[in-house]
Amino acid sequence: MMRTHYCGQVTETLEGQQVTVSGWVHRRRDHGGVIFIDLRDREGLVQVVVNPGNDAMFNIAERVRSEYVLKVQGKVCARTPETINPKMTTGKIEIVADDLEVLSAAEPIPFQLDDKHISEEVRLTYRYLDLRRDEMQEALRTRYRVTRSMRRYLDDNGFMDMETPILTKSTPEGARDYLVPSRTHPNKFFALPQSPQLFKQLLMMSGFDRYYQITRCFRDEDLRADRQPEFTQLDIETSFMTEEEVMDMMEGLTKTIFRDGVDVNFDYDFPRMTYAEAIEKYGIDRPDLRIPLQLVDVADLLQDIEFKVFAGPAKDPMGRVAALRVPQGGQLSRKEIDDYTKFVGIYGAKGLAYIKVNDLSAGLDGLQSPIVKFFPDQAMEIMERVGAEDGDIVFFGADKAKIVNEALGALRCKIGEDLDMIEREWAPVWVVDFPMFEMDEKTARMTAIHHPFTQPKATTEEILNHDAPHQMLSRAYDLVINGIEVGGGSVRIHDTHMQAAVLKMLGISDEEAEEKFGFLLNALKYGCPPHAGMAFGLDRLVMLMAKRDSIRDVIAFPKTQSAACMLTDAPGLVDNAQMADLELRFRKSLTEKQAD
Amino acid sequence: MMRTHYCGQVTETLEGQQVTVSGWVHRRRDHGGVIFIDLRDREGLVQVVVNPGNDAMFNIAERVRSEYVLKVQGKVCARTPETINPKMTTGKIEIVADDLEVLSAAEPIPFQLDDKHISEEVRLTYRYLDLRRDEMQEALRTRYRVTRSMRRYLDDNGFMDMETPILTKSTPEGARDYLVPSRTHPNKFFALPQSPQLFKQLLMMSGFDRYYQITRCFRDEDLRADRQPEFTQLDIETSFMTEEEVMDMMEGLTKTIFRDGVDVNFDYDFPRMTYAEAIEKYGIDRPDLRIPLQLVDVADLLQDIEFKVFAGPAKDPMGRVAALRVPQGGQLSRKEIDDYTKFVGIYGAKGLAYIKVNDLSAGLDGLQSPIVKFFPDQAMEIMERVGAEDGDIVFFGADKAKIVNEALGALRCKIGEDLDMIEREWAPVWVVDFPMFEMDEKTARMTAIHHPFTQPKATTEEILNHDAPHQMLSRAYDLVINGIEVGGGSVRIHDTHMQAAVLKMLGISDEEAEEKFGFLLNALKYGCPPHAGMAFGLDRLVMLMAKRDSIRDVIAFPKTQSAACMLTDAPGLVDNAQMADLELRFRKSLTEKQAD
Repeated sequence: MMRTHYCGQVTETLEGQQVTVSGWVHRRRDHGGVIFIDLRDREGLVQVVVNPGNDAMFNIAERVRSEYVLKVQGKVCARTPETINPKMTTGKIEIVADDLEVLSAAEPIPFQLDDKHISEEVRLTYRYLDLRRDEMQEALRTRYRVTRSMRRYLDDNGFMDMETPILTKSTPEGARDYLVPSRTHPNKFFALPQSPQLFKQLLMMSGFDRYYQITRCFRDEDLRADRQPEFTQLDIETSFMTEEEVMDMMEGLTKTIFRDGVDVNFDYDFPRMTYAEAIEKYGIDRPDLRIPLQLVDVADLLQDIEFKVFAGPAKDPMGRVAALRVPQGGQLSRKEIDDYTKFVGIYGAKGLAYIKVNDLSAGLDGLQSPIVKFFPDQAMEIMERVGAEDGDIVFFGADKAKIVNEALGALRCKIGEDLDMIEREWAPVWVVDFPMFEMDEKTARMTAIHHPFTQPKATTEEILNHDAPHQMLSRAYDLVINGIEVGGGSVRIHDTHMQAAVLKMLGISDEEAEEKFGFLLNALKYGCPPHAGMAFGLDRLVMLMAKRDSIRDVIAFPKTQSAACMLTDAPGLVDNAQMADLELRFRKSLTEKQAD
Repeated sequence: MMRTHYCGQVTETLEGQQVTVSGWVHRRRDHGGVIFIDLRDREGLVQVVVNPGNDAMFNIAERVRSEYVLKVQGKVCARTPETINPKMTTGKIEIVADDLEVLSAAEPIPFQLDDKHISEEVRLTYRYLDLRRDEMQEALRTRYRVTRSMRRYLDDNGFMDMETPILTKSTPEGARDYLVPSRTHPNKFFALPQSPQLFKQLLMMSGFDRYYQITRCFRDEDLRADRQPEFTQLDIETSFMTEEEVMDMMEGLTKTIFRDGVDVNFDYDFPRMTYAEAIEKYGIDRPDLRIPLQLVDVADLLQDIEFKVFAGPAKDPMGRVAALRVPQGGQLSRKEIDDYTKFVGIYGAKGLAYIKVNDLSAGLDGLQSPIVKFFPDQAMEIMERVGAEDGDIVFFGADKAKIVNEALGALRCKIGEDLDMIEREWAPVWVVDFPMFEMDEKTARMTAIHHPFTQPKATTEEILNHDAPHQMLSRAYDLVINGIEVGGGSVRIHDTHMQAAVLKMLGISDEEAEEKFGFLLNALKYGCPPHAGMAFGLDRLVMLMAKRDSIRDVIAFPKTQSAACMLTDAPGLVDNAQMADLELRFRKSLTEKQAD
């Protein structure tokens, strides 16, 4: 037997007992002819004392280095009062070794585990060492606590954990599918799923009523900061539940996992906000409500002024003129304002107008601004509308609505963080009443904002005859926490005619619809229950809960931003025999490519 | 709200109450001017009564057909005594409808759900209908109960559920890997894992101590009867545990899932048997111990007889001569014996010698056999050794050991079933002391029976200098139930030199070892704990527990035997743009292939 107790669990309750522990040498110190070893396992550290006397054992102890794996037998003894370490669970005792065995030697490791300045590349190459660090252990333990809590909640609420295929068919967003050739089907490919959407809908049509799965999804795309080619989703679907019921159930889930995962208790109902309100007040559909700043529309006041920079967007149906009041922002320096001007430039804003509110009782004279002269008659009304007080600054955005929303939306978060305005640790909000469709500017085609299986707030007739489809709302809902979309879902279409109408609206021909979704359109004919569901992005959710900066910190073996695995060196080259088996060849050989 | 109760849960305790239920029309009967609808949901059936009077409602009821989805509001009323159905949970009541709403209409379905003669092809094409059947609902519910029970047991024993990559690197058995090309890495491929073996070992090196995952694995191979290209594994790894401790823990797991999954209680320790004993007595390393028949070696008695058919194999070190006694098998007819002779022919046996035991007290005269004349001096000793009694038959196999083992091993199961000799419902057994290596007859290379990361029962020195490597045992263990291998595992190598020695033994060059396993050999240098683990084949295990004939019956959306999905028609063709994106082309075009 290699252990009777975990290192981190040997406490004063065991005083006087013989124990066996196994673990890694975290630190070795020689002091006054005695060797002290901090032995580490999953549960923590314990101090092992090796006294001279037993030469064989002492020689072993002298030989061990950091990260050696040892088995220690010994007696649990109280430490002397002056050597007690109150910070450690095991700090009142030490194990006086009777026997010591090296289970595995260790070469000097390539970096010190507690060195904070190791590049992520090195950490990922030696992931098995990186994962030994306390904070990585805790991050992955949090992930486990979260998934375990999810499962228990869903089990307790009558959901069944069910599996759906990983080798499946290319989907609507097929351009991002990973394709998988197969020896048994030359010239054909499986696709890895971007989500189990259609299969979970089919499970509802099969009568399983409540489904969940914590499952891997895949997307082969240019990798942005916090994306992984494979990611994990908590995927949920229910029958005979309305969106209200689903949101209530999922809110309960969210509260439960926060309690079990990170000891956070929400004792209030999550607020709900329409998409329109989110855009109006926060410029974004995933508002960070920890920050109290809000955008205020002022276009109506500025349509008739001469100052074209404001009047133009104010009159443009696609334009927006909005103000962002920053309480006590009057203290911002010229330099800071210039930096914010550059910052909004990232989002396409051509400038950043502002008014410093020095003394409201002095009227216009109390406003310090390069622009107030352009709308002297409206300035005080704007101040009143935004609720300005002495000492504030009010920023303005005027441009296409998209630019104003993105620029001021980002600015409010940046200023909120810079000026330490974050009022609370957690700010969850449900966003509802999303538009069903949006125009893809590149392709000039209508696309579904959630996905084409979401139910519009309209009848089939209305869908087919709608004259302003971009105004049509959907029965979708997103859960946003601290400005991060942690989950989203919708009521699905459960009628084959409505589904066909939506596909038509998306410019999908009948032939293409039949080819890609024929099985779904068919299945919808044989008695489909009303159904609704949701999916949570597990990686991002755990990152948020564990307060980590990257999803790579909550994934045991993540890919880099270029979608490679530093540890195993995947993806890799394959030999010609494997290619021949698949009846494939490369468009260009590797040497041709290198010559390019 | 679409329901207050599940259909199957409306019982007499609700008598007099208003309820709302939703579900599928299972059956509609018109009787005496009243319409009776059996409404079905996940939890069962309830009888809905629609009385005439409310014309609108009655008209709807007249219109509904099988598999329509309805919402029904009504009052729970006791049935009259003569209409009580004691077989149904809801058999004492009926719901008298006040309101009826069609949530979804249904076209006539392509087959009747209770029709037992529907081909599997049709069932898989309309899987969402097939899954509505009681027995499919129950099979998948059993699967869920099993996985839930596994998780609880492992959670309670300190195991952490952790995820490992699906997009990974091609492994030793690379020839069967599914490969995945990627836009971001032209000419390179990910591989889908055949198991998370190396990642779970790395997690042990990372200090996570106890890991589990219910995870998908992949194998692109010619599909045998009960194989799927993607299959699910309960994957487990532990640090600082011996094989005895792992087997005890896994035996506890197995007992727990049988109790929770199918209400079977094992109140005894699972027997353990060496590989050598299994082969000797049952001819196979996964013996079906429900059947009491055993093989008995008799070669030592027959080496010196003139009858070459027996003496040859008896003298051959690679040969075997074994007897299989079938109690009361003397009643088998000539025709039945001929059929068994054909049956063993499948396994390469050239014949099936036998002795019918008519009357032991009469000596040789009491034995009826075409062959007993060839070994008159040994026949009675053989009878004694196999424990023959009057009325028995004793079969013989004499050939290369492999053929005798396979032929008589299969024959004992076949006869056991034919003659109704199955003594108990469940017969679990641990098989241990497997050989570490075997010779692959095709390639004449040594291969690892479990996998190359299994620890041999030998030191590194012994491995490098072994003169009979096929005799070396490994620290592997398999769990076999009713002749099915439901799981297997081993103590792993935790020393880089031993790992290198085993790879060398397998004929893997240093370069290839470095290329394929460099990261593992490296990781083993930095303090690797002794570790051991196991994997259960979930599909097969649930099939066994649920007493189904095919793993396809316990998978929601299985592939056919030709590795295709009938429902979605995967794998499918992809367009040229997708191929170009991947910088791939086909070796032959589809038209060229068709012309072949």
